[in-house]
Amino acid sequence: MLHGGDYNPDQWLDRPDILADDIKLMKLSHTNTFSVGIFAWSALEPEEGVYQFEWLDDIFERIHSIGGRVILATPSGARPAWLSQTYPEVLRVNASRVKQLHGGRHNHCLTSKVYREKTRHINRLLAERYGHHPALLMWHISNEYGGDCHCDLCQHAFREWLKSKYDNSLKTLNHAWWTPFWSHTFNDWSQIESPSPIGENGLHGLNLDWRRFVTDQTISFYENEIIPLKELTPDIPITTNFMADTPDLIPYQGLDYSKFAKHVDAISWDAYPVWHNDWESTADLAMKVGFINDLYRSLKQQPFLLMECTPSAVNWHNVNKAKRPGMNLLSSMQMIAHGSDSVLYFQYRKSRGSSEKLHGAVVDHDNSPKNRVFQEVAKVGETLERLSEVVGTKRPAQTAILYDWENHWALEDAQGFAKATKRYPQTLQQHYRTFWEHDIPVDVITKEQDFSPYKLLIVPMLYLISEDTVSRLKAFTADGGTLVMTYISGVVNEHDLTYTGGWHPDLQAIFGVEPLETDTLYPKDRNAVSYRSQIYEMKDYATVIDVKTASVEAVYQEDFYARTPAVTSHEYQQGKAYFIGARLEDQFQRDFYEGLITDLSLSPVFPVRHGKGVSVQARQDQDNDYIFVMNFTEEKQLVTFDQSVKDIMTGDILSGDLTMEKYEVRIVVNTH
Amino acid sequence: MLHGGDYNPDQWLDRPDILADDIKLMKLSHTNTFSVGIFAWSALEPEEGVYQFEWLDDIFERIHSIGGRVILATPSGARPAWLSQTYPEVLRVNASRVKQLHGGRHNHCLTSKVYREKTRHINRLLAERYGHHPALLMWHISNEYGGDCHCDLCQHAFREWLKSKYDNSLKTLNHAWWTPFWSHTFNDWSQIESPSPIGENGLHGLNLDWRRFVTDQTISFYENEIIPLKELTPDIPITTNFMADTPDLIPYQGLDYSKFAKHVDAISWDAYPVWHNDWESTADLAMKVGFINDLYRSLKQQPFLLMECTPSAVNWHNVNKAKRPGMNLLSSMQMIAHGSDSVLYFQYRKSRGSSEKLHGAVVDHDNSPKNRVFQEVAKVGETLERLSEVVGTKRPAQTAILYDWENHWALEDAQGFAKATKRYPQTLQQHYRTFWEHDIPVDVITKEQDFSPYKLLIVPMLYLISEDTVSRLKAFTADGGTLVMTYISGVVNEHDLTYTGGWHPDLQAIFGVEPLETDTLYPKDRNAVSYRSQIYEMKDYATVIDVKTASVEAVYQEDFYARTPAVTSHEYQQGKAYFIGARLEDQFQRDFYEGLITDLSLSPVFPVRHGKGVSVQARQDQDNDYIFVMNFTEEKQLVTFDQSVKDIMTGDILSGDLTMEKYEVRIVVNTH
Amino acid sequence: MLHGGDYNPDQWLDRPDILADDIKLMKLSHTNTFSVGIFAWSALEPEEGVYQFEWLDDIFERIHSIGGRVILATPSGARPAWLSQTYPEVLRVNASRVKQLHGGRHNHCLTSKVYREKTRHINRLLAERYGHHPALLMWHISNEYGGDCHCDLCQHAFREWLKSKYDNSLKTLNHAWWTPFWSHTFNDWSQIESPSPIGENGLHGLNLDWRRFVTDQTISFYENEIIPLKELTPDIPITTNFMADTPDLIPYQGLDYSKFAKHVDAISWDAYPVWHNDWESTADLAMKVGFINDLYRSLKQQPFLLMECTPSAVNWHNVNKAKRPGMNLLSSMQMIAHGSDSVLYFQYRKSRGSSEKLHGAVVDHDNSPKNRVFQEVAKVGETLERLSEVVGTKRPAQTAILYDWENHWALEDAQGFAKATKRYPQTLQQHYRTFWEHDIPVDVITKEQDFSPYKLLIVPMLYLISEDTVSRLKAFTADGGTLVMTYISGVVNEHDLTYTGGWHPDLQAIFGVEPLETDTLYPKDRNAVSYRSQIYEMKDYATVIDVKTASVEAVYQEDFYARTPAVTSHEYQQGKAYFIGARLEDQFQRDFYEGLITDLSLSPVFPVRHGKGVSVQARQDQDNDYIFVMNFTEEKQLVTFDQSVKDIMTGDILSGDLTMEKYEVRIVVNTH
Repeated sequence: MLHGGDYNPDQWLDRPDILADDIKLMKLSHTNTFSVGIFAWSALEPEEGVYQFEWLDDIFERIHSIGGRVILATPSGARPAWLSQTYPEVLRVNASRVKQLHGGRHNHCLTSKVYREKTRHINRLLAERYGHHPALLMWHISNEYGGDCHCDLCQHAFREWLKSKYDNSLKTLNHAWWTPFWSHTFNDWSQIESPSPIGENGLHGLNLDWRRFVTDQTISFYENEIIPLKELTPDIPITTNFMADTPDLIPYQGLDYSKFAKHVDAISWDAYPVWHNDWESTADLAMKVGFINDLYRSLKQQPFLLMECTPSAVNWHNVNKAKRPGMNLLSSMQMIAHGSDSVLYFQYRKSRGSSEKLHGAVVDHDNSPKNRVFQEVAKVGETLERLSEVVGTKRPAQTAILYDWENHWALEDAQGFAKATKRYPQTLQQHYRTFWEHDIPVDVITKEQDFSPYKLLIVPMLYLISEDTVSRLKAFTADGGTLVMTYISGVVNEHDLTYTGGWHPDLQAIFGVEPLETDTLYPKDRNAVSYRSQIYEMKDYATVIDVKTASVEAVYQEDFYARTPAVTSHEYQQGKAYFIGARLEDQFQRDFYEGLITDLSLSPVFPVRHGKGVSVQARQDQDNDYIFVMNFTEEKQLVTFDQSVKDIMTGDILSGDLTMEKYEVRIVVNTH
Repeated sequence: MLHGGDYNPDQWLDRPDILADDIKLMKLSHTNTFSVGIFAWSALEPEEGVYQFEWLDDIFERIHSIGGRVILATPSGARPAWLSQTYPEVLRVNASRVKQLHGGRHNHCLTSKVYREKTRHINRLLAERYGHHPALLMWHISNEYGGDCHCDLCQHAFREWLKSKYDNSLKTLNHAWWTPFWSHTFNDWSQIESPSPIGENGLHGLNLDWRRFVTDQTISFYENEIIPLKELTPDIPITTNFMADTPDLIPYQGLDYSKFAKHVDAISWDAYPVWHNDWESTADLAMKVGFINDLYRSLKQQPFLLMECTPSAVNWHNVNKAKRPGMNLLSSMQMIAHGSDSVLYFQYRKSRGSSEKLHGAVVDHDNSPKNRVFQEVAKVGETLERLSEVVGTKRPAQTAILYDWENHWALEDAQGFAKATKRYPQTLQQHYRTFWEHDIPVDVITKEQDFSPYKLLIVPMLYLISEDTVSRLKAFTADGGTLVMTYISGVVNEHDLTYTGGWHPDLQAIFGVEPLETDTLYPKDRNAVSYRSQIYEMKDYATVIDVKTASVEAVYQEDFYARTPAVTSHEYQQGKAYFIGARLEDQFQRDFYEGLITDLSLSPVFPVRHGKGVSVQARQDQDNDYIFVMNFTEEKQLVTFDQSVKDIMTGDILSGDLTMEKYEVRIVVNTH
Repeated sequence: MLHGGDYNPDQWLDRPDILADDIKLMKLSHTNTFSVGIFAWSALEPEEGVYQFEWLDDIFERIHSIGGRVILATPSGARPAWLSQTYPEVLRVNASRVKQLHGGRHNHCLTSKVYREKTRHINRLLAERYGHHPALLMWHISNEYGGDCHCDLCQHAFREWLKSKYDNSLKTLNHAWWTPFWSHTFNDWSQIESPSPIGENGLHGLNLDWRRFVTDQTISFYENEIIPLKELTPDIPITTNFMADTPDLIPYQGLDYSKFAKHVDAISWDAYPVWHNDWESTADLAMKVGFINDLYRSLKQQPFLLMECTPSAVNWHNVNKAKRPGMNLLSSMQMIAHGSDSVLYFQYRKSRGSSEKLHGAVVDHDNSPKNRVFQEVAKVGETLERLSEVVGTKRPAQTAILYDWENHWALEDAQGFAKATKRYPQTLQQHYRTFWEHDIPVDVITKEQDFSPYKLLIVPMLYLISEDTVSRLKAFTADGGTLVMTYISGVVNEHDLTYTGGWHPDLQAIFGVEPLETDTLYPKDRNAVSYRSQIYEMKDYATVIDVKTASVEAVYQEDFYARTPAVTSHEYQQGKAYFIGARLEDQFQRDFYEGLITDLSLSPVFPVRHGKGVSVQARQDQDNDYIFVMNFTEEKQLVTFDQSVKDIMTGDILSGDLTMEKYEVRIVVNTH
């Protein structure tokens, strides 16, 4: 298990005493893995063509000397000032067509030939010098790729990308983007510009293609970066750190990670939940943490790395509240439980100056191992040392929820419904909640993935759906799968063009219904549905449904569609398909999915009885279940093991009742 | 009665099946009039000088073949990409002096000679080809004119406009704009620039003149567009569609429609009330719909056209909620009742792509006549077919409320009072409410219009008032009119320069009072007035009044002006003048105006007794009253006809009590 | 005592009747001092090199003729249009690098050689012409200096300033700014640019130095302006008017006035409290007015001038509510009580046009002495005429609170804690409150000032603290002073670099504690401390404290640091040092400081017993105490004089109980 984090010795090259303390404190903190070189370009190449590697040689040696490992970063995330000054083409141009000045980070042009050459060259030098160093564990490409550039080079690249996509046919593009609308027909490729607040921003097909292009161009930039690494260090795995959007921990919207995942050897990501906030319970947030981990793990269906988290507070939330005692261990173990093989922090040592000097770190400004945060990090380290056999273990699941980046983009862009209440990823979390509460493993998958391993597939709000996806959902259900779909699904195809002539015939066949209208409600509007003699509150969205061959499961209570179907079920060939027409309160999903859990015999990996707010998550290999029992509440909780298990930390055999303290985590093993 | 709407076959030229369905569905929907060619420039002239009219020929023929009519639009609202590319001067420059990229719509330079030539040319071609087609009903110039351009061409035009207005005298301009303030004196015309967030924005005289110029330049652009139409089709009426600002349905602020009205043959406008919202009652909103219609109708004192509305939901409100069953008929009939001779929708057929694909339409993506919205449209069509005799009938009124665009601009721009509570048009609605509740016809007129037809003239918050308006108000009252004026009136003249030496002597003469101070309150501050033994809540504004010869009608209850006059009345020659010094709760206006209604014998066209939320509006000709009885509540309502009338739909004679369903509308005729 | 204000006759040069009325009304309003020439450049030099002084000669003569005095302004605050047109380099460039158009005011480049020459030249002409006029009282340089310019000239000046500060060593600068962070190391001075939203904005050392440069460059501009004045009128004092930030009346953030104060002969400032608002009591706001006055007076430890205030309402608050009867006198007397030797208004006469035409003035648009505001101004004038012996008297204090502009800048810029709750100056107000409530004089001093005159020095939230300040605090305490410091103190040094190796050893020595963690809470989070058997509510911030040699005064009640110290005290050599670790409710500060008031025998200048909301402030000379007893409540208040005093207005001897009316002020003298 990797434990450590981002380490920036390049900030302390004039302080050999600090560099020496770093090594001592690594041992005391039970850390073993350090991401080095992120943002170090100025230190490595202070002037163009003048290199300084000695300090990095020394860091490699020191880390190696204590048995540690290095995740070596390529430095493209922040270039030196001389580079921007000498080659202004590397500076990004924003959507308003304003060329940015030098500064910040993560803001280079994605297309610039100069920048691609410069990054490839410095990466080659790094690979040549450290590629075979025994301490080298992994490559960390750039840092948190994101954003876009609208310079002329990128405009050109975008047009070439479009030509390729649309077979050099403007006619095809004009149709796909529905350009006759508002007289937007293009008759020359040079007329096409990226979306802009000072130009075109309402052509949805263009917007969607621009986002796709940005993902592709970012991957292209990344692929250029790794050319020398693949060549010189073919055995060293490569990753780049992904992100999530705060505070709901929804998938990062800037890039389609389902595409990017294919290009990395391992998923790694930076997790910054807003623990201890004042608007939701700890358990509510823990559920969201589970969800995003289940998505990022499922991208490659293999364990991932927690590349960054904070041992205490961050510096960029609205309120930067420190993790309470025990929370660093608890939250770290949750990441492991959901599939991480690491706990890596940003940052190992706090910087003295500039904007991140107050961001939490393993080593604080006091340079001491005595403070609370350091001690809690060391506790995590000791725990991870007992978990080495968990490395590489899997989390098989029979339930999947489908998330799609393109759908999210198209739905957010859609003019219609209500801007503030679309909440696509939050709706997925709402459907995920019941399974999390019942400790039932879930994969959060994307549309290209294989549906066949699952008994149950949940597809909420799939506004954008391709013919291919429709076919695959049909096959899944026909072959015996249980499919759940909701309101606002199947509206547009992959070009963001609506289906015409009614709902897709295959969807009608699967569900035995046709949605007639989607009613969008004002925030204070409420309706309700009746389902199995209970009444559930409804808000935001309701579908008026024409039932053809389906059975009615729930009916609306009020408004002009009172007494009409709100939820339906339908036997389709070997499988069954449910359509949930309305946005309903959590308790509906709870009662509805508990029925399916029973019907489909979905179960936790290992049953532990517990109250609300305790989560039990497991990783498995052929021989063992590694079970993480986590108390995400501020109270003591009673949990009950009906089978005896071994506490992996203490070696004790646990059975029957166990009282867990606030934020306590127990890791137990069940040998098959 | 025209029934139909915007129709964009140019989006479906590759789908002859759809074009054929369009015609079939027109008949089924009882629609007869279609606005064609809006945004069709790319389809008409795909390359510069290369024209394609065949498709439009075909549309004309098809519509004609079913007895339908075409409102033909000029395509200037959205130009082809090639036009922007070849002639960049047509691109608008925003107030921050940033030239916009091609994209969007409604964003051309108002001055560009090239664009004026291009639009005149294509308009000529349209007039030549379709000007004598029997299906051609009307010209629809461009679409929803609005916005401004700050390019060098417009700066030049603005300076010429100023030279003309100020007799080539910078001295006159400097005085009118009070430029010695902040050393802003101009000594060369070239120093004058339009208002800008990066330059001058606090010179109120400049701001006001810029807005006047923008109206004049827009009209100039429009006048250029219609040159070939006037020449080739002198008998075809010309309109352009006006707008309102949402959600309070206040008059559109971008242009002074009182000027524009003189240049069109008929007023037409696009009405998008936020029906069924969660912050006001349906009746409250219906009152606002009544108000704006009474303004737009009064602009030309003749029936107008509802050029756009939605049969279901729009796509650009914050929440896009569908009209409930019955609301399309009810709201359509309200438009007719207030003077419209049409119900036209945006849009006939929903587009498949881009930003308006989810905007309500007669024909939905299902391409079917079976859905609820289509059926309700057909119901409106059937109703309109019974109302042909209503076409052209008038709505004579004895009560007028004065609205002034220039006053609105100047008051919004004024530094002083409280930004958030000026609410000039909302205050007019507040004064309009009582008359609407009592079914008493009101004209909402502008300052140039003849005051003499009215018994009662209400002038709230007329901050900007010219000497001429003062004289005309004086004459109106002297001649026996009843005049009501409120707080924040008579502060500045038409140059936005304050009157000095006290309130205008003529206003003092009319009202017998002088306002001493206007007190501006914080949002949570409250005071009250006592009027005829009742106490009414007051907020926002209070005038401390020096009563000279007036009678005191109401007095303040608190604060340093407690026990001083808040409302006064004054006999002035043949007439009477009331001054309302404070912003009072609705019930005050209700009680106050009910007194005037009695005193002046103001009455509905036809008396119908009913409860709150029912509106009875009438149109009249020499022989008949056409009475629209509309239930704007969600409950059944009892209405009582003391005289018998004939139901225009059923032919039944109605008399005595009648129970109306939620949202029900009855149209009855009373023959004189 | 000066009474009068900004007077702009240049707006009325075509109205000799108005100019004549001005003089008559000056006498009636008991005003005697007028700030003339602010924004008069266009009137003085209508074309380049063409001067018009005659009108100003006349104004000087007229004012002199009635015994009045002139504060003559230099006109640089708003230049003529011809100047911007001929010399575009004088136009400011904003942080986004957009060159501004001509317009507004206070927006010239700070560096432009042309503008410096032009201003020096016109100032010389003014000094030559009016420097020896008997009516000339003082120079008013420009107006409300503020803002910054990012043009190339300013970039160059900034780089030169940096070279000078950092001894021409980029290495020193790189270290001070901690540039290795995010690879920001500069290897050429030309790479440095001012902070920008389109470039670098997260390099805190750069941000801080830019703000320092802007202050220095503004002072440099000012010093250039006064060259001819110093030369030609060495005996005429020079000032420039300072500002405060609204609505909490916190110190203006644009400039470090502690530096600027050294360059003016007298502090003058523009005070615009939001009296009668709807979110705080009148007394709460009066306390804030006291605080800012005590800061601005302490900048030079001498009486200051109230250069601007409004006799009624302003025009730029969100709600522009008029001062209630009595408030102008009360608030004017408060200014005098806290050290002002003037009551000057913006503005003497209301302008007719442009953006300030609705701003309160002595002479309103009615041009009459009869209105309420005029009468109340005259009352202030009559009162001031009785206060001539107060001129020049002091306000000695034994208590000081430390405010530091650089600390404010650095703390606001800090990423960490919670953006919305830093509230540094508001925290100082919170500590000031108890002394204000007890009528105990306080100086609000800056870090360079002598600490030794004080018994008690309060240093809240001193996030940025230099070694020098630490030493001086140490010496203060060692020598017997009582020092109070709070949470978030001593984090960074003057380069915004954190202290390392723990809290500064000298701070540990003084306080006998070491802060271990600063806990940042969410807005709804609450904790509490127990202090002397009382429980006090805590929010926002808590310091976890390691007590070394200190005594524990208060302990936390909840959370993981429950039962640990929250407030400590420590005897250090001759003195005592308190550390308040948490943000506590007002009542804590009240009880805590009441203890210190007793311990240190702090007392009012003259004891008057009274209830809440009454403030008693005094000025003193060798012979007399001038005591201002002010009722800042809306109720009658009983005050009790235990010693007899003389009412300075009536000459009555007051003793024992006195009932004061709402907003009443009494000024009494106690002769030693």
